[in-house]
Amino acid sequence: MIEIDGNRLIGRLDTFAAIGATQKGGVNRQALTEGDRRARRLLAELAWTRGFSVLQDPMANLFIRRAGHDESLPPLLIGSHLDSQPAGGRFDGALGTLSAFEVLESLEDARIETERAVMVVAWTNEEGCRFAPGCMGSMAFAAGEIPPEWQKKLATDGAPFAGELAKTIESLPGATVIPLGFPVHAYLEVHIEQGPSLEANDIPIGVVGGIQGTRWLDVIVTGQTAHAGTTGQAYRRDPLRALTAALSSLYEAIMPSDPDARFTIGRVSVEPGSVNAIPDEARCTVDIRHPDPGRLDELEKQVTSTIAKESDLQRCTVAISRSFDMPPCTFSTDLQNMIERAAADRGFRSTRMLSGAFHDALFVNRVAPASMIFVPCRDGLSHNEAEFVEPGHAVAGCEVLAQATVLLAKEADVERVHQAD
Amino acid sequence: MIEIDGNRLIGRLDTFAAIGATQKGGVNRQALTEGDRRARRLLAELAWTRGFSVLQDPMANLFIRRAGHDESLPPLLIGSHLDSQPAGGRFDGALGTLSAFEVLESLEDARIETERAVMVVAWTNEEGCRFAPGCMGSMAFAAGEIPPEWQKKLATDGAPFAGELAKTIESLPGATVIPLGFPVHAYLEVHIEQGPSLEANDIPIGVVGGIQGTRWLDVIVTGQTAHAGTTGQAYRRDPLRALTAALSSLYEAIMPSDPDARFTIGRVSVEPGSVNAIPDEARCTVDIRHPDPGRLDELEKQVTSTIAKESDLQRCTVAISRSFDMPPCTFSTDLQNMIERAAADRGFRSTRMLSGAFHDALFVNRVAPASMIFVPCRDGLSHNEAEFVEPGHAVAGCEVLAQATVLLAKEADVERVHQAD
Repeated sequence: MIEIDGNRLIGRLDTFAAIGATQKGGVNRQALTEGDRRARRLLAELAWTRGFSVLQDPMANLFIRRAGHDESLPPLLIGSHLDSQPAGGRFDGALGTLSAFEVLESLEDARIETERAVMVVAWTNEEGCRFAPGCMGSMAFAAGEIPPEWQKKLATDGAPFAGELAKTIESLPGATVIPLGFPVHAYLEVHIEQGPSLEANDIPIGVVGGIQGTRWLDVIVTGQTAHAGTTGQAYRRDPLRALTAALSSLYEAIMPSDPDARFTIGRVSVEPGSVNAIPDEARCTVDIRHPDPGRLDELEKQVTSTIAKESDLQRCTVAISRSFDMPPCTFSTDLQNMIERAAADRGFRSTRMLSGAFHDALFVNRVAPASMIFVPCRDGLSHNEAEFVEPGHAVAGCEVLAQATVLLAKEADVERVHQAD
Repeated sequence: MIEIDGNRLIGRLDTFAAIGATQKGGVNRQALTEGDRRARRLLAELAWTRGFSVLQDPMANLFIRRAGHDESLPPLLIGSHLDSQPAGGRFDGALGTLSAFEVLESLEDARIETERAVMVVAWTNEEGCRFAPGCMGSMAFAAGEIPPEWQKKLATDGAPFAGELAKTIESLPGATVIPLGFPVHAYLEVHIEQGPSLEANDIPIGVVGGIQGTRWLDVIVTGQTAHAGTTGQAYRRDPLRALTAALSSLYEAIMPSDPDARFTIGRVSVEPGSVNAIPDEARCTVDIRHPDPGRLDELEKQVTSTIAKESDLQRCTVAISRSFDMPPCTFSTDLQNMIERAAADRGFRSTRMLSGAFHDALFVNRVAPASMIFVPCRDGLSHNEAEFVEPGHAVAGCEVLAQATVLLAKEADVERVHQAD
């Protein structure tokens, strides 16, 4: 049984949390910033110290490779990302990347020779805050190319994507540049749950079976602005009245009746936005999620028809457009079984679960079997400077990853996994 | 019967609409700007041409005085304001001010000697857009002083109130400066309805019995932000769900059951405002209005208890504060009767009505009998560059004002009005 160094892992998390540390104990280390580059350089230096090779591809995805016995076999890939939200936590991404690196060091410490190479990856721009969309690194890796239109992207701070990407690659001159995409035996990613269920059920390990589908809608209801004091009921065409009626009924209908559904309104605004004027426009975003693609379609219809009906009642018009549509993804069953077995080997309770959030694993899953190992985070808080993971849970996730890594990279029968999926 | 010159009035409206004209046919002539000063100077020049005296007080309220037979009697005051919304219409304020001046010229044209002086007033900053609050000129006139804290006010464009006020007064060196506040026999103001009811009922003259009470509330519902995809129903504390449920039920309850009530949500926002994050804070403003102060209290209680109940259901907290509280005002019954009689004398249908909006008359009513004459505006539109008044309606309002002016300023029995109120 492979032993990891829990204290080293926790210390590493502290070290990396200092790069882009915020006053409230969080991290601001957005993709392709100087902070992101510093974190990449530190990881590369640590890798060189241990004699691992350091590679990067044209998307600045960073790879650390420990050779295997049979170098002709596709490597096992483990990792996550190092970039953060603008007011992000210390664990989102860093935990998975540093856990993977800890596994690599532990293999080295124990002089375990694996059949195939094991590679740690830190994907570029998982968060998608400074440059949208998220998961650009893993998306390009899976596609085998960088979409040409990305070159023209500008950051929220105005910086050009192409320039920031080039600067990031140049900031690690010692890392060999390899082409985008290569055969991968399997991919495993440790991540915080970013939700409350593991903590609430006191289970340290979540075995992730897939990622639910997500659809984003932009809603604009248009009426007519008029004076709040002078305009009687019969003369009002109030888009906010229509929208609140629709949303209120959707909040009541969707999640309470379907425990797998998610319905969230994250943004709402009105124009002209004056205390004493009936708005002429009410806008909101809608985020609907479901593991079943058919139900996603039904939910979208329910949302659009409810808003249309209420808009009609208020003599308002409505325009709804999809801004994002990500179908559900299902992870390899064999990999899930293997994670479950690894957790059991280590004496941890585990549970099968779906991920509500995207992760790089969703994109890698398009070209190789993938799955994820979730650990609890306090109060389910994430994308928040107060994000916190119990040290024992961080260590547990890393131990399960180490165990699964040995099973996948060392044992001869792991070929089954790749072929079965 | 006094004759007014309708063509002169309509031409004047066009002339003044050119000062601060916007591309869309509206007016941007905010209080104490160069445009406002130009409008004041033009009115003063027109007055001097006719031999009237021009006066201003320390609030830059502008007065044009036509002497009466008995100069010991308090003058009749008629007028409105010349400042506009940033994207305002051509009639809001200008119609009442120029109608009053037309009455003064018509008296002069017809060589009618009135028992008491008639004074036209253009109040400073009725709109309250560049400097809050609105009606600063009439408010200070009624109070007899400028509140000392106003001196420190800054405009939305950063200009200091004290400096802009001084510059405005200095821009009319020929106008005698008089102290703030003086005895007024009665005050009449012509204004567009700013609502749709006169037009809808095809009635040219509204006799205004008072101004309904207004109360503004600031609502903040606080929950907890969390990931839209990962957070199940049981773990959500969604302040926007609470707020939409409350608002939806209040929209259904308040106005449909009480035709005198007004309930408007003019602003709504959430924090952090991310498409895939449950908000931790939902805010809105509430504008409630009613002619009955007791019902205003009841409505406020209904609003606060409904929001509190729904917030409780979503395990959210709520903070509600009053940002504005204006009790209803009742205008002089004698003046209303006189306006009604003047309208009948001129052959116009009229109806008694309440004003949903504030006007300078509300403040003058604190120190002298006051009332207002409303005329229809197309589609009830106001505070909008598309604001429009039929020339026939503009002339009708001015004719009724002229008729009432003669009744109030010439006839011996008008003393009754002042004493009765």
